Amino acid sequence: MGVEEISISAPGKVILHGEHAVVYGKAAIAGSLDLRFHLNLKKTRDVSIALALPDIGISQRVELSALQSQFYSMFQSESQREPVPASDDVIAALKNFLHLDKDSHDTKQLAVVAFLYIYCSIFMVKRELPSICVEMKSEIPVGAGLGSSAAFSVALSAALLQLAGVVTSEQISDSLAAWSATDLDIINKWAFIGEKVIHGQPSGIDNSISTYGGALRFQNGEKTRLDRIPTLSLMLVNTQVPRSTKKLISDFRHKYNTYKEIFEPVLSSVEAITEKAQLSLQLFKETSDTSHHDTLGDLMDMNHQFLNLMGVGHSSLDQIVATACDHGFHGKLTGAGGGGCAIILLPSDADAVVLEKMKAKFDSLGFQVFPKTSFGGRGVMQHL
Amino acid sequence: MGVEEISISAPGKVILHGEHAVVYGKAAIAGSLDLRFHLNLKKTRDVSIALALPDIGISQRVELSALQSQFYSMFQSESQREPVPASDDVIAALKNFLHLDKDSHDTKQLAVVAFLYIYCSIFMVKRELPSICVEMKSEIPVGAGLGSSAAFSVALSAALLQLAGVVTSEQISDSLAAWSATDLDIINKWAFIGEKVIHGQPSGIDNSISTYGGALRFQNGEKTRLDRIPTLSLMLVNTQVPRSTKKLISDFRHKYNTYKEIFEPVLSSVEAITEKAQLSLQLFKETSDTSHHDTLGDLMDMNHQFLNLMGVGHSSLDQIVATACDHGFHGKLTGAGGGGCAIILLPSDADAVVLEKMKAKFDSLGFQVFPKTSFGGRGVMQHL
Repeated sequence: MGVEEISISAPGKVILHGEHAVVYGKAAIAGSLDLRFHLNLKKTRDVSIALALPDIGISQRVELSALQSQFYSMFQSESQREPVPASDDVIAALKNFLHLDKDSHDTKQLAVVAFLYIYCSIFMVKRELPSICVEMKSEIPVGAGLGSSAAFSVALSAALLQLAGVVTSEQISDSLAAWSATDLDIINKWAFIGEKVIHGQPSGIDNSISTYGGALRFQNGEKTRLDRIPTLSLMLVNTQVPRSTKKLISDFRHKYNTYKEIFEPVLSSVEAITEKAQLSLQLFKETSDTSHHDTLGDLMDMNHQFLNLMGVGHSSLDQIVATACDHGFHGKLTGAGGGGCAIILLPSDADAVVLEKMKAKFDSLGFQVFPKTSFGGRGVMQHL
Repeated sequence: MGVEEISISAPGKVILHGEHAVVYGKAAIAGSLDLRFHLNLKKTRDVSIALALPDIGISQRVELSALQSQFYSMFQSESQREPVPASDDVIAALKNFLHLDKDSHDTKQLAVVAFLYIYCSIFMVKRELPSICVEMKSEIPVGAGLGSSAAFSVALSAALLQLAGVVTSEQISDSLAAWSATDLDIINKWAFIGEKVIHGQPSGIDNSISTYGGALRFQNGEKTRLDRIPTLSLMLVNTQVPRSTKKLISDFRHKYNTYKEIFEPVLSSVEAITEKAQLSLQLFKETSDTSHHDTLGDLMDMNHQFLNLMGVGHSSLDQIVATACDHGFHGKLTGAGGGGCAIILLPSDADAVVLEKMKAKFDSLGFQVFPKTSFGGRGVMQHL
């Protein structure tokens, strides 16, 4: 614990294909989105934990003495490498300690609970609670289905585990350090515990992607990391239209049940899109032949239309995809739909002037634009 | 041949479901569209045939003596009830007689050729060419995939066969007379001959629908008349955007071949829509339960989206369907797509004010609107 400062970033996630179909046992592909959650941890002499995530209005100070006296007995398992899921009692006690309503489902508040749970789990057993100040900043829009809470959990776990010496990063460039596969597995397990505190029953997909980066195929609860995946340039457009994932899933369930003969084949089409996309990603990585990149564009357009058919579209999402098309690009809604975000695939030779024009159009429509991000890039990293 | 005047009307046709999918062996349902082709035939003493179809600029006068002298030997088969398809030689001779280019594919000019072919076939053998004046008027937009040429062929065949006494109508109301099933079969056969002159290789669907009315299911060249089909109220909107059916079919063929795993299920979905529509039509007819009418609306919306996926949509067609949706109705493109027409299903209790508002919107967009027509109504009729 000789370090005085640890700077970490972890990416968001975006679904490339298969959203909704995955509920029906079809495969989906998601990957890291290079909008990152940044965490800066400094050791202090205040005998406290100071947390600041000004983007979402989190500012919390916890006295270590109070934490120690109230929670020492609750965190005594020697399990830094193999974390124990939070029990309801411990969560209730932490909420009480933070003066939160015991039934609170506010993810911002639960993020603070997750922070304290992970902190206590790692450090309490050693009777050595480090005094730290943690400042966080997220490029990832919150509540937009882009895995912002998982990126938080991953960055937090990496920072605290690195501080505790449970994992050890290795320098990979002038400014970056990364962890071994074994260390990443430990970080990922802890991040999943954090996700559970925040979301109850997360799939584990978001934290896996944020930890390892790249892309993941998931089907029926099975996750498979996709090797040989290229990094794709994307423009991400956030409609900022709020929606309920739960309602969208249940509305489509109703539609599916009413017209099963019509929607069973739709799910097969979407599955075929996912398979073809996986193949095209691999072929594009292997051959750099841009025709495979073109295919990825076609598949996005088609999947967007299928998602519309499934009733999870939104006029603002159509506007984004139509505008992309007008400028010679292809895109689709990503995630639950009904609002939220759309992604637009950018070829490497995309004309900067055209991109600027397209961005201006989205700005004028009141959307939040991330003009150039990427899919399938690096997972959690330490910044030196 | 005691009649001095015969007034006939024959309906257009509209595809309810299955356009494009039918090319791949899936079923389609089409039915009569109650926009009608009107034909008024009067006996004259001019020893000529005078044809007028001012809507499309046809005005033709043919001297019977010239017709008789040039074509007497070519039309000698006694086959008024079982027509003989026109040979290339006869068609070439008729084109020459009318001073048309021998390679002309102008359907307006070919309609005149068809007229003369049917006229000569029916009357020449008896050496009794009636002197007539035929005035025609079509409510059916020409070249919009609504079977205007078939309605022409059907009305023409009915009028000439009635004049010749080959078929005999029977009064069914104060103002209408109709033909027996046997007579309709004869009219339909002659109309098909007319369609062949105009179109080369017609499917026979359009003339069958215009002759018998109601609805028809067709699949792999097989036609099945659908009994117990209700008459549905429709608003028909013509974008007046020109398109090539051939190109649309070939573009989708290309898409299908490129992404077969994706589009094979799409065709299954469209087939399921057609089956469900057929069932819903029957159930609505039998029970008058409006939930089946609602289902028909849902199916239209869905099929429209599938047709978009197949790449045969058009922004103007989407505008029509979206406007219908905004006013609480459902609709789809009909026919080849890429422009052409859309149909909107009207419940019997549709609010007249809302309909007027919707029509005004379509007017303002520059579309041609037929605010209230119907699907599945009467075939060819004689007006008394």
